[in-house]
Amino acid sequence: MMELWQALKRHTKSGKYPFHMPGHKGGRLGIFSDMMRQDITEIEGFDNLHKPEGILLNAQKRCAGVFGAEESFFLINGSTSGILAAMMSCCNENQEILIARNCHRSVYSGLIFSGAKPIYILPEMLKGKELFGSITIEQVKKTIEKYPNAKALLLTSPTYEGITSDIENIAHFLHQKNMVLIVDEAHGSHMKFHDFFPKTALQQGADIVIQSLHKTLPSPTQTALLHIQGKRADRKKIQQALSMVQSSSPSYLFLAAMDACCGWLQKQGKKEFESYVKKLQWFYKRASNLENIVVLQKAGFDRDRGKIVLQLPKENITGIQLNDLLRRNFAIEMEMGSLSYSIAMTSPADTKEGFCRLVEAIEKIDKQLSKTKKHIFSKIEEGDCPPIIKTTPRRAYFAQKKEILFLESENHVCGEFIIPYPPGAPILAPGEVITKEKIQKSILLQKAGVSFVGCQDTALKNITVLAESE
Amino acid sequence: MMELWQALKRHTKSGKYPFHMPGHKGGRLGIFSDMMRQDITEIEGFDNLHKPEGILLNAQKRCAGVFGAEESFFLINGSTSGILAAMMSCCNENQEILIARNCHRSVYSGLIFSGAKPIYILPEMLKGKELFGSITIEQVKKTIEKYPNAKALLLTSPTYEGITSDIENIAHFLHQKNMVLIVDEAHGSHMKFHDFFPKTALQQGADIVIQSLHKTLPSPTQTALLHIQGKRADRKKIQQALSMVQSSSPSYLFLAAMDACCGWLQKQGKKEFESYVKKLQWFYKRASNLENIVVLQKAGFDRDRGKIVLQLPKENITGIQLNDLLRRNFAIEMEMGSLSYSIAMTSPADTKEGFCRLVEAIEKIDKQLSKTKKHIFSKIEEGDCPPIIKTTPRRAYFAQKKEILFLESENHVCGEFIIPYPPGAPILAPGEVITKEKIQKSILLQKAGVSFVGCQDTALKNITVLAESE
Repeated sequence: MMELWQALKRHTKSGKYPFHMPGHKGGRLGIFSDMMRQDITEIEGFDNLHKPEGILLNAQKRCAGVFGAEESFFLINGSTSGILAAMMSCCNENQEILIARNCHRSVYSGLIFSGAKPIYILPEMLKGKELFGSITIEQVKKTIEKYPNAKALLLTSPTYEGITSDIENIAHFLHQKNMVLIVDEAHGSHMKFHDFFPKTALQQGADIVIQSLHKTLPSPTQTALLHIQGKRADRKKIQQALSMVQSSSPSYLFLAAMDACCGWLQKQGKKEFESYVKKLQWFYKRASNLENIVVLQKAGFDRDRGKIVLQLPKENITGIQLNDLLRRNFAIEMEMGSLSYSIAMTSPADTKEGFCRLVEAIEKIDKQLSKTKKHIFSKIEEGDCPPIIKTTPRRAYFAQKKEILFLESENHVCGEFIIPYPPGAPILAPGEVITKEKIQKSILLQKAGVSFVGCQDTALKNITVLAESE
Repeated sequence: MMELWQALKRHTKSGKYPFHMPGHKGGRLGIFSDMMRQDITEIEGFDNLHKPEGILLNAQKRCAGVFGAEESFFLINGSTSGILAAMMSCCNENQEILIARNCHRSVYSGLIFSGAKPIYILPEMLKGKELFGSITIEQVKKTIEKYPNAKALLLTSPTYEGITSDIENIAHFLHQKNMVLIVDEAHGSHMKFHDFFPKTALQQGADIVIQSLHKTLPSPTQTALLHIQGKRADRKKIQQALSMVQSSSPSYLFLAAMDACCGWLQKQGKKEFESYVKKLQWFYKRASNLENIVVLQKAGFDRDRGKIVLQLPKENITGIQLNDLLRRNFAIEMEMGSLSYSIAMTSPADTKEGFCRLVEAIEKIDKQLSKTKKHIFSKIEEGDCPPIIKTTPRRAYFAQKKEILFLESENHVCGEFIIPYPPGAPILAPGEVITKEKIQKSILLQKAGVSFVGCQDTALKNITVLAESE
């Protein structure tokens, strides 16, 4: 079977004149010509992503084989679309769904679209590290005891910081209760390809798994996969929902790139991952002797060390400041900087030279860090601060709202999201009571330079609240 | 202000090492390197589409200027995402919204997500042409008289076949009633740039307008725009909803290509459109003397002649058969073939040589068409066959369902979509009563080779219906 990319190349050489979309007609006007030559639409000989029967169906089947799923779907609207479709497939209006609180914002959109009632599980903070740990099997058992009618559990593993949860035991327990386990594995699409990394959610028995391809594998931004195994996921509903949240004109560039990524994994994956892991091991060894900065190793249930997390003495330097230094003085662009840590995303495409530059830069900065604590920041803990839910996100979304001063919003019902980004886990979601702690935490992060999304006034002066409690 | 594409090019030359997404790290592994070099993420110096403040905000402002909107949003999940966001912004659960029945399937997804109650307006069929005509101001007035509480009207103009409606008068009337006019102008993004084409919906006073960029302008598949003007559209809600239906990792390739398309329109648009229209005029003149095939000129309220519609003596040849001939014998790939017509999409990127090839091929085929009518097909009329709505699409979506034989499904409540594609206007939507006429029409189209989407069994043997009426 021909690869999609080869089929596109052959098509461009066929001499066929295109009286069809897209309007650039193979890049004839000279803008973006290289890229657009292979950007076609659902013409004869190709396939319709929303009803794949030919080359796309075959490509998706190969993909399922590569990633160890029974069925895989190409996503051209990111993991976001996979999360929305998974949720629309298993929660009806007002049905309960268990949600790890540190889920991505797309999960909250899924709550608004589905109308499901979220039961949140709060991951504990890793001791002294100010970052979310795993969701434990004990937490899951306790929550299900209290909410036995929930239809599904959705959690993020690995997190933005690489922390995974014990999917195997959680899946096993959920399946006894006939519940569906959805894992947002957006950050873990690479994990199957070397045992230096934690096991994948599919290997551990999850029913629906969503992976970003672009985050840690060589595939363009916005490409992702939804995998299914077993009988608990409603495959028809998932397919139907995917068609609802994805463009009816999917990009063939994306589809071909995803197929090519699968081909690359099949043919060169083993060799390239050996090399990748060697570079990572070299980095972790070399960076283990810093004075002030701590490079996070294993943590939580298990940790994907493809994510390099630099823990900082934040009284001296924040992640935002560190990234600034790295950018300006060392021409290194990091993935994310928070108050107390900084993340470098790595992938098999990283070079030894890149790792060298990073470690040398960190060593230099580390030496210059004064040990005098300045105590600018108070400690942030959120582990024991569960959201107080007044109404479902969907009802809050459609309710009448008004804008008030954020500092005076205590006890009001929130009408929007307050999401520090990255990593994108909300402090407040629509329908939740605004508390003093949540106001303080938001202001603290904002002052430290963390960006906010999901809210109208990203400077956090004002906040949208429900006009009256329901 | 630097264009986004220039900024990306400069960035690739900066020598900065990427410890951030995407995982291909600028195409370092050699697959898709050309394309991926400029595929970055929300790093310093660039911008966040979900909260634009810098280069993307400026690009969107320029775009608004070029298209004559007050505010424009780049869409990276196609017009689909614009339709969903527009609907989520103006219909609450169970509120009435007026919908032209020939709307794209994304509108039906919008009904499922929003929970709004659709009041359908059926465009009449163009006399003897088996294609949808305009939505008239009289129809709109009559419907609003009956449903004065509807919040908005959503219609498609131009249609897939280029038929526009009298947006100016419809907008004027709606605004007196304080209703919002949403126009799906996915097929009309080129119309503003030459008066050979009908006026755009923005020029005629629509509140929210969604345009595909990739259909008729030089921009990659899946790129689109949402435009707003006036005070009736809730801009905050639209922005919020757009963030819900679009990937949180938008493709910078798409964003840059959209910005470049705007730049091209500003700088070369006038000249290129003069040349495009000359080619179209040449084509229409030359193709006006065919014996059997009729090239559709003006029709309905007005027609976008950028769409070449070939009306066929379908007793002799269907659109599907014609397109097959064009493909095999003339190396021309058409956009769409239906029972009685075939569509050639054109754009400013089309060449004179392309138009010549098309007209010469049609002339040859036209001459060979026997005038002996074979009467294979009966006439299809749907203008007077309104859907019987049993429950809202949202409630039908979440209801219990079963599968039965399509031929035996009369009087059952449909649980899925029956959508001939292209063009993608449903014969049946979830929550509607299945009638004998609708079964017959579907089977007829299916036998003629038209593809179906939105349903599990695209061969139309089985259909999903509601397990019991609500």
